[in-house]
Amino acid sequence: MDDRIRDHARTLIEWSARIEPGDDVVVEVGEGAHELGVAVAEQLGQRGANLLATYRSDELRRAYLRAHDGEFDTDPEYELALYERADSVLILKGSRNTAGTADVPGDRRQAYSRARQEIREARLDTDWVSTQHPTRAMAQQAGMAYEPYREFVYDATLRDWEALAEEQATLKDLLDDGEEVRLVAEGTDLTMFIGGRTAVNSAASVAYDSHNLPSGEVFTAPYDTAGVVTFDVPMTIQGHRVEDVSLTLKDGVVVDYSATQGEEIVEEIIETDAGSRRLGELGIGMNRGVDRITDNILFDEKMGGTVHLALGRAYDACLPDGEAGNDSAVHEDFITTMGEGSRLEIDGEVIQEDGRFRWE
Amino acid sequence: MDDRIRDHARTLIEWSARIEPGDDVVVEVGEGAHELGVAVAEQLGQRGANLLATYRSDELRRAYLRAHDGEFDTDPEYELALYERADSVLILKGSRNTAGTADVPGDRRQAYSRARQEIREARLDTDWVSTQHPTRAMAQQAGMAYEPYREFVYDATLRDWEALAEEQATLKDLLDDGEEVRLVAEGTDLTMFIGGRTAVNSAASVAYDSHNLPSGEVFTAPYDTAGVVTFDVPMTIQGHRVEDVSLTLKDGVVVDYSATQGEEIVEEIIETDAGSRRLGELGIGMNRGVDRITDNILFDEKMGGTVHLALGRAYDACLPDGEAGNDSAVHEDFITTMGEGSRLEIDGEVIQEDGRFRWE
Repeated sequence: MDDRIRDHARTLIEWSARIEPGDDVVVEVGEGAHELGVAVAEQLGQRGANLLATYRSDELRRAYLRAHDGEFDTDPEYELALYERADSVLILKGSRNTAGTADVPGDRRQAYSRARQEIREARLDTDWVSTQHPTRAMAQQAGMAYEPYREFVYDATLRDWEALAEEQATLKDLLDDGEEVRLVAEGTDLTMFIGGRTAVNSAASVAYDSHNLPSGEVFTAPYDTAGVVTFDVPMTIQGHRVEDVSLTLKDGVVVDYSATQGEEIVEEIIETDAGSRRLGELGIGMNRGVDRITDNILFDEKMGGTVHLALGRAYDACLPDGEAGNDSAVHEDFITTMGEGSRLEIDGEVIQEDGRFRWE
Repeated sequence: MDDRIRDHARTLIEWSARIEPGDDVVVEVGEGAHELGVAVAEQLGQRGANLLATYRSDELRRAYLRAHDGEFDTDPEYELALYERADSVLILKGSRNTAGTADVPGDRRQAYSRARQEIREARLDTDWVSTQHPTRAMAQQAGMAYEPYREFVYDATLRDWEALAEEQATLKDLLDDGEEVRLVAEGTDLTMFIGGRTAVNSAASVAYDSHNLPSGEVFTAPYDTAGVVTFDVPMTIQGHRVEDVSLTLKDGVVVDYSATQGEEIVEEIIETDAGSRRLGELGIGMNRGVDRITDNILFDEKMGGTVHLALGRAYDACLPDGEAGNDSAVHEDFITTMGEGSRLEIDGEVIQEDGRFRWE
């Protein structure tokens, strides 16, 4: 086995999920994530944790959903019982075909999702972590050959997380103490308020309320945004290419928008509900292991020298107790690179310039 | 998808497991059984049953067991809760390497098994069915090329089970009414009593108390066996080749034994406990789709024109209520082909001669 797979598993178990002896762990093994599954099983054995492996397969799901009449049972008891009692759920993504469920009708997918709300909540109540084993399909999605893609994934994943958590703490403190953020870049001049909100130091560990490996971002929940923002990072949303999205905001609400490609997808998102016209997240990428865009949000939004904003739902962790933030059925991230001439200011103080933090 | 895979899935769901709408079904997908998993998912969707897919992987299990210190938690609650609430467990075997756990120490394996007794019982309490997707590794084990092996598996599996169940009912009635069975073949002349015992019509369906697909045998629990029996079908037991096992029995107990290969394995089995010196099962193969020996007990013991006897534990289904049959920690089958000059008699009446039943 490639040493990096074993290192990945160790990082997942030790740093991210903080697995203890006797923990009841569900390992969700993706179709293409078998090797990482083996390495994770070894780590769980070493730690004396319990292992139940489930099979995360787009092809099984597609076959099931397409054949079903859409009247799904609500939260089947056997599955709910499993997740209510699990301590951790480790999601090992590893797609063999990123278009593997492309012909599942959207309403079927939504009906299935609606029928499983308690199961979803039970899973989110565990120390869950989502990570990704590099597959050829993901390399293809990134437009990369397999071997360099593997290097990319491990560069992003096998970080000195302790050091990054410390660096991120600096930014978190600045955001927690700040009132107003200003973002200046090509096609972008946006101000947003963050006073009273709490930033999350997302350091790829449940100990930091962070459930992605890799992670490497600090995020908070802005309000009263005003100005213009252009997202130059292309994305695939629900199978559709979306490029150069631009939003104009006034008093916190999107008043105009455009995109050079996929504008109808952006419209669909914005028109979802009242909350989908507002921003729910300001995220600042700080993972310097992510050195290119690979059309995979798990990696793209963590890239050092990028900023992402999400239309829709705000995360509870950013809000004062008892205060409801922006609520919506959607949470859709868009990313902008902070290049030459860009600035990120907190209360007029320049924190990042030309894509480099002032402490870098 | 190969039509036969879909037919296999339909047979499993309709005939074998009798899945109903709303059933909570666990599908255990073997490493090499992905395609059958997809077909089963489709069938479950069509029937409106619930699906939870687990991953049956020798490589994960090997890694976990080898890394573990051997002090396993007893029946982890999350897994027990799952199986206690499941209606059916469908085991889709599909090994990619039949020696995949060859270097797991036997005591580690046994300790793991001992720690999971309640989970095992909960699984056996469901409408479980075990079946096998043809893989290259299984073809190799059989000494066959892949394509003819696939044909072999589907010939054995895609039977007219209703018709076979009816034919088997004839033999079951004869055994239920009979007192004494005599088996005559090359190197074999054995008598055993079966009075008061009930034969099982094992027709590959939970409706017949039969949990294997394929099946195709009638079995009962004999006692007071006497004579000599030679098993000419070679087998692999715990990774060891065993050939030409011969047993001499007197008053129901093995008094002598030999084998041209693997005699030490036979000795180990016989020396396990008091019950392992007695026969617990007489099984009569009736599946004419199994036309050759493939070193796989799921198929071999069902072959029409063979008889198998097991050292060790008798099945409860064969015993009168409240009567304890032969008890043992082991149940090890050995197979003999009923060739030219062979006879199977019940109370002196010839039921099978030269390997053909009298009604064939």
